[in-house]
Amino acid sequence: MHNIEENIPNRKDIIECYERIKPFVHKTPILTSKYINQISKAEVFFKCENFQKVGAFKYRGATNAVLKMADAIKNKGVATHSSGNHAQALALAAATNGIKAYIVMPKNSRQVKIDAVKGYGAEVILCEPTLQSREDTLKQVVEKTGAFFIHPYNDYNVICGQASAAFEMFQEKLNLDIIITPVGGGGLLSGTALSTAYFSERTTVFAAEPEGADDAYQSLHCGSIVPSTNPDTIADGLLTSLGEKTFEIIKNHVKEIFRVNDDEIIAAMKTIWERMKIIIEPSSAVPFAAILKYNEIFVNKRIGVIISGGNVDLKALPF
Amino acid sequence: MHNIEENIPNRKDIIECYERIKPFVHKTPILTSKYINQISKAEVFFKCENFQKVGAFKYRGATNAVLKMADAIKNKGVATHSSGNHAQALALAAATNGIKAYIVMPKNSRQVKIDAVKGYGAEVILCEPTLQSREDTLKQVVEKTGAFFIHPYNDYNVICGQASAAFEMFQEKLNLDIIITPVGGGGLLSGTALSTAYFSERTTVFAAEPEGADDAYQSLHCGSIVPSTNPDTIADGLLTSLGEKTFEIIKNHVKEIFRVNDDEIIAAMKTIWERMKIIIEPSSAVPFAAILKYNEIFVNKRIGVIISGGNVDLKALPF
Repeated sequence: MHNIEENIPNRKDIIECYERIKPFVHKTPILTSKYINQISKAEVFFKCENFQKVGAFKYRGATNAVLKMADAIKNKGVATHSSGNHAQALALAAATNGIKAYIVMPKNSRQVKIDAVKGYGAEVILCEPTLQSREDTLKQVVEKTGAFFIHPYNDYNVICGQASAAFEMFQEKLNLDIIITPVGGGGLLSGTALSTAYFSERTTVFAAEPEGADDAYQSLHCGSIVPSTNPDTIADGLLTSLGEKTFEIIKNHVKEIFRVNDDEIIAAMKTIWERMKIIIEPSSAVPFAAILKYNEIFVNKRIGVIISGGNVDLKALPF
Repeated sequence: MHNIEENIPNRKDIIECYERIKPFVHKTPILTSKYINQISKAEVFFKCENFQKVGAFKYRGATNAVLKMADAIKNKGVATHSSGNHAQALALAAATNGIKAYIVMPKNSRQVKIDAVKGYGAEVILCEPTLQSREDTLKQVVEKTGAFFIHPYNDYNVICGQASAAFEMFQEKLNLDIIITPVGGGGLLSGTALSTAYFSERTTVFAAEPEGADDAYQSLHCGSIVPSTNPDTIADGLLTSLGEKTFEIIKNHVKEIFRVNDDEIIAAMKTIWERMKIIIEPSSAVPFAAILKYNEIFVNKRIGVIISGGNVDLKALPF
């Protein structure tokens, strides 16, 4: 533990990261809605990472990780396994910097996602849809190519990159009482927690999680990582377990994690689509669902919500 | 004709209108997409009136029309017939200013639209789904209540209000070569044309229209109003015919109207949803479909596109 704490990104790391990735990422807009405020009985500010490149905050972390690589290893490329937004994020971040990317994807990934990753110039290696096969295949790829593995969240460079979304919010001087994000592996949440600790100390950090994948809630309350087993939720970006690096930060800086069920997530998502006219993925609706469900915590507060992404299958909407 | 020309809103009218409605309307964001620019081979700036109050530009015109009413007639209320965005726009604009609104709606209107209009406090009067019944019912309502009829587009106060969207765009100094809007009754297009004539003379005004409702194209090329007969298109905001006031302006200021079919509209709409993560209604996709179809006109140009609205039935998407 001591090692981990010493290496946790500090204030300067986050500022430097922001300056490093700034030319590559979108400064996404912050949107509000009178109707949302009415039903929330609060002032809610949505940081729209669904408008980020590749449609998700993941591009921030992937970009920082790629830019921080030593020149000596860049020519070997980068690698990861992912069926989701990290795959596209790393593929584009690598391509933008002239680096080869190897992305291991489960063979049951949607074709549109595989095509998107290939479209960014990455080499896609298909594997069986199990964590074991993903890790084994990635290991083989790394051994064969010498590519540098970039973890989707349990990586301080990635965490620093994700921290830049909240950092941008705090620059707007919105005087937030609360900031809330969804939590899957914890990259966005731990980055947000660090930005809050360094740049908006008065703001309370909360997270929201699907009941069907509540490992972060369990971990926070048990004091050690409880892995996600058989997660089952429509919020398919939040299935993964915390990592030791993200958990260490979350444990120290996140006040509470609120759980919502899939019906609540779908209703929150539909309200945001209909009223704000923005496309968000189910995972992004989890914090707003929590604001409505546990409204007594949020009433009359100024709340920053990070909308994590907008990648949905338009042919399979839940409403 | 002479009378009409004399009354066409001038530069000062549009500036005054903008100042009048500014406290009531959203200054909507202008969004861009690298991918859209790539496939368009141009620089495209989307003015997002889907983020306007009630989800459509119509709120601008309705607000100006309500604010311009003489105090003496305000207590009698306002009235219109509409199954679409003008109904909600007038209902909210009236409610915001403490004025009663009577909205005649065809009885086959979607319940969600009727509920929305009622939700803004308006009185809804249902009629048969024919233009004759709409007009007859409206006439009865006006006779009975003394309410002031506000036409959805053939009204200079409404046209001035719609002109404010392009006016806001020109204030951003985007140096646009082209501005393009969809055209139904012509309120948005004629307002845009006036703003362009007064505030960005170098910019060419184009419009886009569904092939299945191409009365504006026919009218422009024939030199007099050709009414829309049996319009058939997915772009359900563009079914109406031009009015004499909108046509007069369009005739003098719009260079060309491009026609696209429903498949092209749906494809353009899907691209905007998937790539820009914003919800737009089919009518809003018509100009972008034209940019792709008639690309030789638009290549290498800086193009302002007014996204007219974002009110769609999420249960009946065309893709």
